[in-house]
Amino acid sequence: MNQVPAKPEGVDESVWQQMLAASPLEARKLIRQGAFAAPTSGLCPGYAQANLIVLPREQAYDFLLFAQRNPKPCPLLEVTEVGSRQANICATDCDIATDFPRYRIYRNGVMTEEVTDVSEYWRDDLVSFVIGCSFSFESDLIEAGIEMRHNTMGRNVPMYLTNIACKPAGMMSGNMVVSMRPLPPEQIVPAVQLSGAIPSVHGAPVHIGDPALIGIKDISKPDFGDPVDIYPGETPVFWACGVTPQSIVMNVKPEFAITHAPGHMLITDTKNVNLRG
Amino acid sequence: MNQVPAKPEGVDESVWQQMLAASPLEARKLIRQGAFAAPTSGLCPGYAQANLIVLPREQAYDFLLFAQRNPKPCPLLEVTEVGSRQANICATDCDIATDFPRYRIYRNGVMTEEVTDVSEYWRDDLVSFVIGCSFSFESDLIEAGIEMRHNTMGRNVPMYLTNIACKPAGMMSGNMVVSMRPLPPEQIVPAVQLSGAIPSVHGAPVHIGDPALIGIKDISKPDFGDPVDIYPGETPVFWACGVTPQSIVMNVKPEFAITHAPGHMLITDTKNVNLRG
Repeated sequence: MNQVPAKPEGVDESVWQQMLAASPLEARKLIRQGAFAAPTSGLCPGYAQANLIVLPREQAYDFLLFAQRNPKPCPLLEVTEVGSRQANICATDCDIATDFPRYRIYRNGVMTEEVTDVSEYWRDDLVSFVIGCSFSFESDLIEAGIEMRHNTMGRNVPMYLTNIACKPAGMMSGNMVVSMRPLPPEQIVPAVQLSGAIPSVHGAPVHIGDPALIGIKDISKPDFGDPVDIYPGETPVFWACGVTPQSIVMNVKPEFAITHAPGHMLITDTKNVNLRG
Repeated sequence: MNQVPAKPEGVDESVWQQMLAASPLEARKLIRQGAFAAPTSGLCPGYAQANLIVLPREQAYDFLLFAQRNPKPCPLLEVTEVGSRQANICATDCDIATDFPRYRIYRNGVMTEEVTDVSEYWRDDLVSFVIGCSFSFESDLIEAGIEMRHNTMGRNVPMYLTNIACKPAGMMSGNMVVSMRPLPPEQIVPAVQLSGAIPSVHGAPVHIGDPALIGIKDISKPDFGDPVDIYPGETPVFWACGVTPQSIVMNVKPEFAITHAPGHMLITDTKNVNLRG
């Protein structure tokens, strides 16, 4: 099953065609040049996409330990050297400060800016955490004939802040953010098995069914991303999400942080197949 | 197949019988009391055993990042809070400073003491890294009828310093240590598959065959542990080993470090089955 994602609103048609045909390196260059600043879901199928949190060295140990203790929401693909803008492990010729389509700047836990390039915000004491993304298992789900509603609706995946407490580490604590995909009954088991087979990137769902049980009051109002239609007979299925660090940042209020904008991911050179096991 | 390990030399027969029947908590208490200070291979089958490296907070970030970049030799089961002697995640009622049978003290990269209790060496700035151990997959190999030569010979598993460079992180760098088990040809494939199915604890072998290809000059002279017999027709099979941090410590010479003595592991409350995937 080939499931071409719908063009996100506001994207130029010729840029979209280039993005659909691009290698990860080519896609990053289009993004770096400012030609594409939209959600990346469905692009470069087979390659891992990544979330981002950038913190000062002062907070980096606590966050690294937090990620170690919470691998489902925070599967680390790469942690850069202090001060370096370059990713070397998950991609080559990759500038952390320009190669995500969109970023958010947090000061003392409050989002103050959303920008497409963070070069002018960079500091010598920053450490970048490049975190795996549920798009890595979406390829397999799509291959198995499971519709990704947000892709076919041309939207960003819906994400929710839950009441599921992460394991704290030093100053870092807060609740898990999850992504949601509505599934018909017969697709739930294959979705669990296929995503569970990639444990190093979120793995199996953290919850299936009643959103209220994990503290989600209104499924039609996601905290991040866009709402999607849930058809009669479908069940919402929730996976741990790499936007979790943003909820942590909002909770613990470090002096400075940069994240990607939800859904606007880094397209890496790492193949999803290499993230199994 | 039930493969009762042979009693290590120097262990009192009644203590050995208690250890063979003990739960992990009971085993840790016998060790804490000083009754047992020998290798733990084969004890408490089904429960994960663990390696140890303890470093000052000053070096902890670099080591945590090193472990993140080198998960095969350094699969973290738990990282303790700064200064705490208690493990809380992989076991309960577990004192890091007393519950390993034997420890090594390193000063500036040189081993200066080997002791059975490190309470008097403890400092408020120490962080403990509790690292998974190949004994976790040995249970499955034994279950599949694969002989663990070091168990049946009543010895510590042979370990070798290789020429395989680990990925450096900050000040941490050095070569990988591997453990070796000799296998007849028909057992190599199942051994790869069974250990590979537990990727979070060392996973599949890093090398099969000629020891010289990974820098091992004399297979009969391990750098850690004891030599074992290799019968005609058998091939040496090498797995990444949690003693690797000791080679790192000897290489980068931090001012102070504590490790377990090779083979003398922590017996945790974590079941191996929970470390799959």
